Amino acid sequence: MTPTLTAFKASPDRGRGLARDMGVRWALEEVGLPYDVRLVSFAEMKETAHRARHPFGQIPTYEEDGLALFESGAIVFHLAQHHAGLLPEDPKARARAITWMFAALSTVEPAVVERSMASLFERDQPWFEARQSMLDDRVRARLRDLSNHLGDADWLEGAFSAGDLLMVTVLRRLGGSGLLEEHPSIAAYVARGEARPAYRRAFEDQLAVFTAAAGA
Amino acid sequence: MTPTLTAFKASPDRGRGLARDMGVRWALEEVGLPYDVRLVSFAEMKETAHRARHPFGQIPTYEEDGLALFESGAIVFHLAQHHAGLLPEDPKARARAITWMFAALSTVEPAVVERSMASLFERDQPWFEARQSMLDDRVRARLRDLSNHLGDADWLEGAFSAGDLLMVTVLRRLGGSGLLEEHPSIAAYVARGEARPAYRRAFEDQLAVFTAAAGA
Repeated sequence: MTPTLTAFKASPDRGRGLARDMGVRWALEEVGLPYDVRLVSFAEMKETAHRARHPFGQIPTYEEDGLALFESGAIVFHLAQHHAGLLPEDPKARARAITWMFAALSTVEPAVVERSMASLFERDQPWFEARQSMLDDRVRARLRDLSNHLGDADWLEGAFSAGDLLMVTVLRRLGGSGLLEEHPSIAAYVARGEARPAYRRAFEDQLAVFTAAAGA
Repeated sequence: MTPTLTAFKASPDRGRGLARDMGVRWALEEVGLPYDVRLVSFAEMKETAHRARHPFGQIPTYEEDGLALFESGAIVFHLAQHHAGLLPEDPKARARAITWMFAALSTVEPAVVERSMASLFERDQPWFEARQSMLDDRVRARLRDLSNHLGDADWLEGAFSAGDLLMVTVLRRLGGSGLLEEHPSIAAYVARGEARPAYRRAFEDQLAVFTAAAGA
């Protein structure tokens, strides 16, 4: 059975691949698994039918034969567990790669998302400027540590893994901020992820949804 | 070989079990695995030796024979994969439980941590009051959805799992805010987690570290 994802009918990122389905699409392309997409509006996301799939009323969700999952990190992990290409076979290397999945979501993403949420929703608040420089510095601290770990390597732990996929997906949210460019090795790391054929296919597919919606 | 955790030499939470080693200690107790603890000061956490174990200079880290991990979520997952007691054996039930691990860390924790970070570090800022009510509402939205999913159940998906362990660990950061009490089913869920013998042992062990440091 072909699995089915849910994604935004009209993504607020205007097709820049920043919505949460992007990482899952990328993972599906990396493992070579065809999939269907069900598009949902903001209103539909909050309805009972969608909440039965996603208790927090968000996207993406993932359905395959007799199993429904939510949370992009969990879906990427599920794909990585059951298909070759996203996690090393050696148990110790696999545990290290999984550690980087959690590092992307628990240590890097919160600083990145807090900064972009403030940019989106607090720009008109009197505190915006003062807070933003504080939030930039929190992101900088993460990027500095990540850059020190990465060094001259192409990927976080040897071969490309689901840890890199999630980390690049998180870092892409900093596009346009100028923060990535403060660490050329990190900017190059993100570009390396975006250059992967699986990434390109996933990006084009999510962009086509936005383009079709905008043209309708 | 007995695994070794790192934890704060002097936890800023004064022994309330809110530091990131708590969830890992709890998981170790649930699976019945004895462990050693290496205590590190804030200065030591930022030194090269510790950063080799944790690129972001934080706690906890986890070392067992030939493997070093960081990120509390990743360590809990590693323990759950290799020891019985934290994830169901059935593959579909296991994937659902893992989904809740990611939901705890990616969907619930950011709102909770952003709120508590503001309480700790922005209390003297002119914007504190106005932002805090916005952050409270973001937490409330998560708790409402979580409460709707939980209903009358004891745990998120049938039996207690690593998903519950991480979710309760995250929710405990709201203690004292009054927000948990707005949903009696969630307050009872947290209390149910805290009543588990494995939780109690883990809590007492981390408290003993703080008490010893305070008495020294």
